[in-house]
Amino acid sequence: MPSAAHPIGLVGFDGDDTLWRSEDFYQQAHGEFERVLEHYLDLADARIHDRLLATEKRNIALFGYGAKGMTLSMVETAIELTEGRISAADLHRVVELGKAVLRHPVELLPGVREAVEAVAACHPVVLITKGDLFHQEDKVARSGLADLFHRIEIVSEKDAGRYARVLREFGQPASGFAMVGNSLRSDIDPVVRLGGWGIHIPYRLTWAHEMEHALAPDEPRCLTVADASQVPAALAEIEHRAAA
Amino acid sequence: MPSAAHPIGLVGFDGDDTLWRSEDFYQQAHGEFERVLEHYLDLADARIHDRLLATEKRNIALFGYGAKGMTLSMVETAIELTEGRISAADLHRVVELGKAVLRHPVELLPGVREAVEAVAACHPVVLITKGDLFHQEDKVARSGLADLFHRIEIVSEKDAGRYARVLREFGQPASGFAMVGNSLRSDIDPVVRLGGWGIHIPYRLTWAHEMEHALAPDEPRCLTVADASQVPAALAEIEHRAAA
Repeated sequence: MPSAAHPIGLVGFDGDDTLWRSEDFYQQAHGEFERVLEHYLDLADARIHDRLLATEKRNIALFGYGAKGMTLSMVETAIELTEGRISAADLHRVVELGKAVLRHPVELLPGVREAVEAVAACHPVVLITKGDLFHQEDKVARSGLADLFHRIEIVSEKDAGRYARVLREFGQPASGFAMVGNSLRSDIDPVVRLGGWGIHIPYRLTWAHEMEHALAPDEPRCLTVADASQVPAALAEIEHRAAA
Repeated sequence: MPSAAHPIGLVGFDGDDTLWRSEDFYQQAHGEFERVLEHYLDLADARIHDRLLATEKRNIALFGYGAKGMTLSMVETAIELTEGRISAADLHRVVELGKAVLRHPVELLPGVREAVEAVAACHPVVLITKGDLFHQEDKVARSGLADLFHRIEIVSEKDAGRYARVLREFGQPASGFAMVGNSLRSDIDPVVRLGGWGIHIPYRLTWAHEMEHALAPDEPRCLTVADASQVPAALAEIEHRAAA
């Protein structure tokens, strides 16, 4: 519960590219996907990456987020771009690229364990991560961080409504909630819009889909830090501002 | 909360093939999958269904349950069984079969709405459904039943540990919990093992994977009913037994 010393009563952490590396593995799969297709296409002309992104965006309403949907979108894109000339063996390689993403090692980003432990010492912490339920559960289990969190929330989309539901279940007003994450679109924008606070840790890779947001560059309820080690200090600054 | 009149303090309902039709659409996709492959194989020899089930079981540890994983398993099985001879166009048809499953209409089974309303009038009710988060959320939304449930729990697997977590979050001992569902393996067996109660509504189709369970045929904590309309009476009988 919030107090004068701790006006922030709940801290949320994102998973992918906040606690552990993820986008690297997706982009690696995209790179290998292009190498499968280079036997069929002039890579300079084909704009494979744009076409894959377009297929993924079209399919999100049906597939949701995650590696299985990406794999099916890669299969579709490969067939479309090659006009059906791609061999079954190469399509099998595409499926294997998706399976490799599902099996990727869970590597914590620098300073993550210490940062979550420091925040959890003074605040209830919840992991709020988006994507495929089965894959996210598997990554949480392999991260070794599960015991630090009061609750693991795996959601299909990170919008204001989903955050409001989690806050309601914790009996927590948004003004006392801070969310830590790498995506302005999914982690920060909806929380700030609800009246909460954001701690943004940019990751060097961001999926194009996550670039869209409506935050002002000087939004006073969002602090940007360079890495996880700066999260406890940013949270102290937010508590200072929230108490003012 | 349990009382002398209502010793059952929480009632869970399964989703697929308990509230709405699901397996029909999967089996329809399997049938059309065989028709795609009959251009390449002698159907009598190929044991396509057994091979697909074997691929699905092997992939469950990586994909979890649901239509996207099934689609990827169909693509793999088609490539393996045809030894790579299947055309990209036919593999695209296989992907479309999976998309059709994701889009299938949500048709409530007979008497379901009335049964859930009758139970919800006297008991907190929770929907506990297994599978793909995104697809299940979509089906719950389209079912028109969401408002009747106190909580929607979408889980990646239905085992005793998952049921115990839900019961802990509701502060509900297993002895006061009854679960309604079509799968002895997923809905009844783990709940009875925890000390809870089951109401089994067999569905005319059951996925082979769901046939494995360890329940005794005369298990006194499990009642079998013919359809949803009999659930309120079965629950009354369970309350009678639980109070004894």
